[in-house]
Amino acid sequence: MDALFHPASVAVIGASDNPNKVGGRPIHYMRAFGYRGDILPVNPGRDVIQGLPAYASLTDLVASGKTPDAAIIAVSGDATLEQVRLCADAGVKAAVIMASGFAETGAAGRERQQELVRLANTRGMRLVGPNAQGTANFATGAVLNFSTMFMEVAPQDGPIAIISQSGAASVMPYALLRQAGYGVRYLVATGNDADLDACAIAAAVAADPEVRLILVYLESISNPDELALAAATARARGASIVAIKAGNSARGAQAAASHTGALVGNDAAIDAFLAAHGIWRARDIGEMVRAVPLYLQDHAPAQGRTVVMSHSGAVGVMAADLAERHALPLSELQPDTLHALAAILPDFGTANNPLDMTAALLGKGDMFPRVLNALGADPQADMVMVGIPVAGPGYDVEALARDAAAFSAAHRKPLVASAPQQSVRDVFTRHGVPTFVTEADAVAALAQYAAHRQRAARARDMSPAPVAQPLEGRGLQDEARSLALLAEAGVPAVPYRLCASAEEAVAAFEALTAAGTGAVVVKGCAAAVPHKSEHGLVHLRLTSAADVAEAARACLATLRKLEVEAPQIVVAQMVKGRHEFALGVSVDPTFGPLVMIGEGGTLLELRKDIVTLLAPFTADDVKAACARLRIAPLFTGYRDVPALDLDALATAAVALGDWALRHRSAVRSVDINPLMVMAAGEGVIAVDAVVQLEEQT
Amino acid sequence: MDALFHPASVAVIGASDNPNKVGGRPIHYMRAFGYRGDILPVNPGRDVIQGLPAYASLTDLVASGKTPDAAIIAVSGDATLEQVRLCADAGVKAAVIMASGFAETGAAGRERQQELVRLANTRGMRLVGPNAQGTANFATGAVLNFSTMFMEVAPQDGPIAIISQSGAASVMPYALLRQAGYGVRYLVATGNDADLDACAIAAAVAADPEVRLILVYLESISNPDELALAAATARARGASIVAIKAGNSARGAQAAASHTGALVGNDAAIDAFLAAHGIWRARDIGEMVRAVPLYLQDHAPAQGRTVVMSHSGAVGVMAADLAERHALPLSELQPDTLHALAAILPDFGTANNPLDMTAALLGKGDMFPRVLNALGADPQADMVMVGIPVAGPGYDVEALARDAAAFSAAHRKPLVASAPQQSVRDVFTRHGVPTFVTEADAVAALAQYAAHRQRAARARDMSPAPVAQPLEGRGLQDEARSLALLAEAGVPAVPYRLCASAEEAVAAFEALTAAGTGAVVVKGCAAAVPHKSEHGLVHLRLTSAADVAEAARACLATLRKLEVEAPQIVVAQMVKGRHEFALGVSVDPTFGPLVMIGEGGTLLELRKDIVTLLAPFTADDVKAACARLRIAPLFTGYRDVPALDLDALATAAVALGDWALRHRSAVRSVDINPLMVMAAGEGVIAVDAVVQLEEQT
Repeated sequence: MDALFHPASVAVIGASDNPNKVGGRPIHYMRAFGYRGDILPVNPGRDVIQGLPAYASLTDLVASGKTPDAAIIAVSGDATLEQVRLCADAGVKAAVIMASGFAETGAAGRERQQELVRLANTRGMRLVGPNAQGTANFATGAVLNFSTMFMEVAPQDGPIAIISQSGAASVMPYALLRQAGYGVRYLVATGNDADLDACAIAAAVAADPEVRLILVYLESISNPDELALAAATARARGASIVAIKAGNSARGAQAAASHTGALVGNDAAIDAFLAAHGIWRARDIGEMVRAVPLYLQDHAPAQGRTVVMSHSGAVGVMAADLAERHALPLSELQPDTLHALAAILPDFGTANNPLDMTAALLGKGDMFPRVLNALGADPQADMVMVGIPVAGPGYDVEALARDAAAFSAAHRKPLVASAPQQSVRDVFTRHGVPTFVTEADAVAALAQYAAHRQRAARARDMSPAPVAQPLEGRGLQDEARSLALLAEAGVPAVPYRLCASAEEAVAAFEALTAAGTGAVVVKGCAAAVPHKSEHGLVHLRLTSAADVAEAARACLATLRKLEVEAPQIVVAQMVKGRHEFALGVSVDPTFGPLVMIGEGGTLLELRKDIVTLLAPFTADDVKAACARLRIAPLFTGYRDVPALDLDALATAAVALGDWALRHRSAVRSVDINPLMVMAAGEGVIAVDAVVQLEEQT
Repeated sequence: MDALFHPASVAVIGASDNPNKVGGRPIHYMRAFGYRGDILPVNPGRDVIQGLPAYASLTDLVASGKTPDAAIIAVSGDATLEQVRLCADAGVKAAVIMASGFAETGAAGRERQQELVRLANTRGMRLVGPNAQGTANFATGAVLNFSTMFMEVAPQDGPIAIISQSGAASVMPYALLRQAGYGVRYLVATGNDADLDACAIAAAVAADPEVRLILVYLESISNPDELALAAATARARGASIVAIKAGNSARGAQAAASHTGALVGNDAAIDAFLAAHGIWRARDIGEMVRAVPLYLQDHAPAQGRTVVMSHSGAVGVMAADLAERHALPLSELQPDTLHALAAILPDFGTANNPLDMTAALLGKGDMFPRVLNALGADPQADMVMVGIPVAGPGYDVEALARDAAAFSAAHRKPLVASAPQQSVRDVFTRHGVPTFVTEADAVAALAQYAAHRQRAARARDMSPAPVAQPLEGRGLQDEARSLALLAEAGVPAVPYRLCASAEEAVAAFEALTAAGTGAVVVKGCAAAVPHKSEHGLVHLRLTSAADVAEAARACLATLRKLEVEAPQIVVAQMVKGRHEFALGVSVDPTFGPLVMIGEGGTLLELRKDIVTLLAPFTADDVKAACARLRIAPLFTGYRDVPALDLDALATAAVALGDWALRHRSAVRSVDINPLMVMAAGEGVIAVDAVVQLEEQT
């Protein structure tokens, strides 16, 4: 990686004298942006390229005694393989492959791409690309990148890194940031990610102590371990990662598949993975760069409780609406603070949050700093948003900005300003205050920043997953086996007996119901018939031996008709819970077991009141996630229904997640629906379950 | 209103020589912005104000033979009443009252404000304010407005009107629009809305044939009829209204929700009202101005089906994700179009939507216009979004912009461009193409514009509400009376008998169940005891006369214990529906009956799967709204459950809405939960209902 970002020399294979060609731009850029190493153009047709001595071939170059650290390979797809072989033979450490026409074009291209990587790696050379726009380090001027953007928007070194699988998605945030005056150190677009991919490069730049913020654009997370490493490295020194994972819509996934050939994966698993590692997921480029000034300023948002202040009541009203929309908590100011504010603010101001300073802000020069002082002292006021909807003659904007900056410096609390007037924003920006055009942007940025920091604080380095253990069986498991697997996993399952005849069923009924008082369910049990109710194979609320025998005979007959060999039935206790939940697992091939918890019943997929967690996780993680369910009030008692047993639900979910992690190569999915949840202290019981194992492991 | 926007003369009472004072700014503005009428300063201390002859008092002014059309009253609150009286006596037609200290300060202020209006109106004068920043018509230069913003951001006449109750919220969109180069004709901040309010002024400017877009900021809709008139006037000539109604986050709304009526609250009524009148509701100032270029360009969005095109695959992927998020449909291009595109786009482009033109866009100058031509001919391509994530040497941005503009002009289809580079946006803007910084903004603007136009097309002028008819009774109605009222309204209710003894109950059981086969419910019935189950007053699934008699006796005894005089019970058929819905009404004092439809049961308020409609509405309106429910698939058949009877549900909702409208002064709320919905063709039945009438009508 060092060879890419700090190379002593860079060969440009397919070098062009024209700085507007792919093979010419990197040379132009390295010269223009202060690269101090050797630039070594390779072109069979020219002696001099952009004023530099050129070599006819890599062989000539090496023969001259110069082995480049890094190479840019800017020849067409067909010639690329040969050049990669030459570079690898010569001992080049890393190369950027710009040609397209590899995996993104189909199976043949994918094979050529694999050959490319093999040629390089067997001799210890690493590749970025193919189909890559390339790498850039604006601290060293090592720009192995052909984007035209740097012609248009001049680079400047700074504390931000942009790592993207797409060239366009790398320069879009770059342009927005540079136009707003922020410096960017690394800008890397990795293309097809055949070898050194976006995740690995993110991990490398995360180790740069001067990088405070890493922006990542991905269409597929091919290398979750490296991304996790990037996150851990960044977190360890208080730096942040904001990532877009695009292609989360059906149409977007389709487009991504034809763009980079990437399979987009399970979006819920990606959400859970990013959350677990303290990475913020942005939904578009605007959101990706929105909170940048807050990340760079790096004041602690604590719990994110925010005070909104303005000289306009309307700004307060709108900001309160927006705070609710973005789940940004507004500070409940302490009595001392309210008392102090009442003495400062005029009668018709509002000494509550949002604070309305009214037009009196104009007349009293010291009102603003005095209010800020009072807020600085209040431990409930974690962050401040100042709305300046209008200025003009009479407004000392310079003083407001100076006071705002002084507050933030003195108290280390984030403070942002919003103002529609460019001229007002310019003054605040000059004083180092993060500014926004609208209250909506300001509130959204504060909310993101605070939530992201809290997420990062909760993130922890994952202990290595346990060795994957096999399980007996393949494919869909019948109900008895599914319930048995759950019991093994530690999820309480309904008491049942597996029976092969009506007589056994009656005996089971008597055993399960304390000599025939109480009710049971009789169900046909065959892996080949997972949809039991459609075949009339479920008989509920049976309370007599005669009914049980009849139901058992009917089930066995039906199964025989369905050509099930040696048909069996499950006789299970009839369980009545306080509420029906669902608990499930789906093992993602990339991220591992994703556990789903939500309201159960037949309308599960319509109501979609579910949360998901990536294993492993703790009971506290489950409780925090369940607090986001719409039906969460059931856990604390709702109307005349007593509080449900959240502890037992959490324990069951953790057990299921751990079990699925242990058997992650063997398990495909688990669906428990319903999982009956009882009143607090009374537990949970899986009533109906289907475990699906992999077809082959 | 003409006196405010086209006055022949304007008196400024409390005129100041200092153009930076409230009484000085309007004079300065009118002179600077080309007002051609007479400006008549009134100030007892000066003969000349800002170079104009001044009058010592309004009396002097009138005595000189000049009666102003309009007056600005810029004196302090105390002096305001006297000046209003003088103006009214003199025959001034309208006045802007700038002083604060009226209704916003409490009860005494509210009285003074009423006195102000009385003084004016009895002599035929109309007021804007008090506490108003004032009115401005930049077409005539009549600026009766003291905002400092016009000093900072120069005005220019144009097709936009901004009407706001707040001064700050009027100048924020103004500043954003003016900085982006859009002209604004009217800018009005009405303050306390004591007389001519924001809604009435919106109705007035809606009649200006040159106004294409009206932006409205409200904190309360005091005058819905005038806002409806504004909407109808604008709609009739294809102009649009985008409104913010702020203050929707009232934390109290959450707590109050103990029954269906409280759930829907005031904000739902506002949403429904604005939707019914074809007004788009923006959530913040940024959203308010976002789609402005589309409104002004005024091409028909048809069904809003959009084609995304870019030379970057990533833009296509992100735009597809964003389209799903904003419910913007992507075009399914016709086979002819795909065929044509395949011939134009290079092999590795994607001749599907989103279209990836790849970097080949650079090499082939005619590719872009040829693709646009193909799209122009496709009736499935209603709108086009072009993403230009990067430009630079080799990109003929001028040609791209010209071709884009030509497409839109030729086909009258909206086309927008997004580009992070200011320089690129400038070129497109110069050619009249709506441009956006990010794909997110572009997609959101297109989605809003298309959805708003569709909403406006559906809006219809409301026929006047029927005369309000009284109903017998007050307050909470008992179950029998509630069911009877529903039957009267035309909502099918469960068959029941009201009984006063166990004997009557048994007779009812036999009558209701065809001589004792089937089941009934026995419930205590007393208006004073609405929460029946808490008192054990609900007995379900009774199938024998003995059980019915016992339940009846128990209920009667309990009611007697609860000190209910002459206790009664309801014996009702036990009804089993396919799914439990809820149907309710809450009569909003401003907007009338708001009907709520959603998933019923005890978790109604947690699941919150509800839609709301403002009466009157049609069965088709109900069906369109119900399609937005999460459980909507139940209406077309879900898994092994047959399709539910949406027709009957719609009929019941329309009947209930019409009934509530007829009795809108008498009804406070109706809660039907559950409303059992049967399979298609089998109807709906209200099983449990509470009607609450007003305490006094």
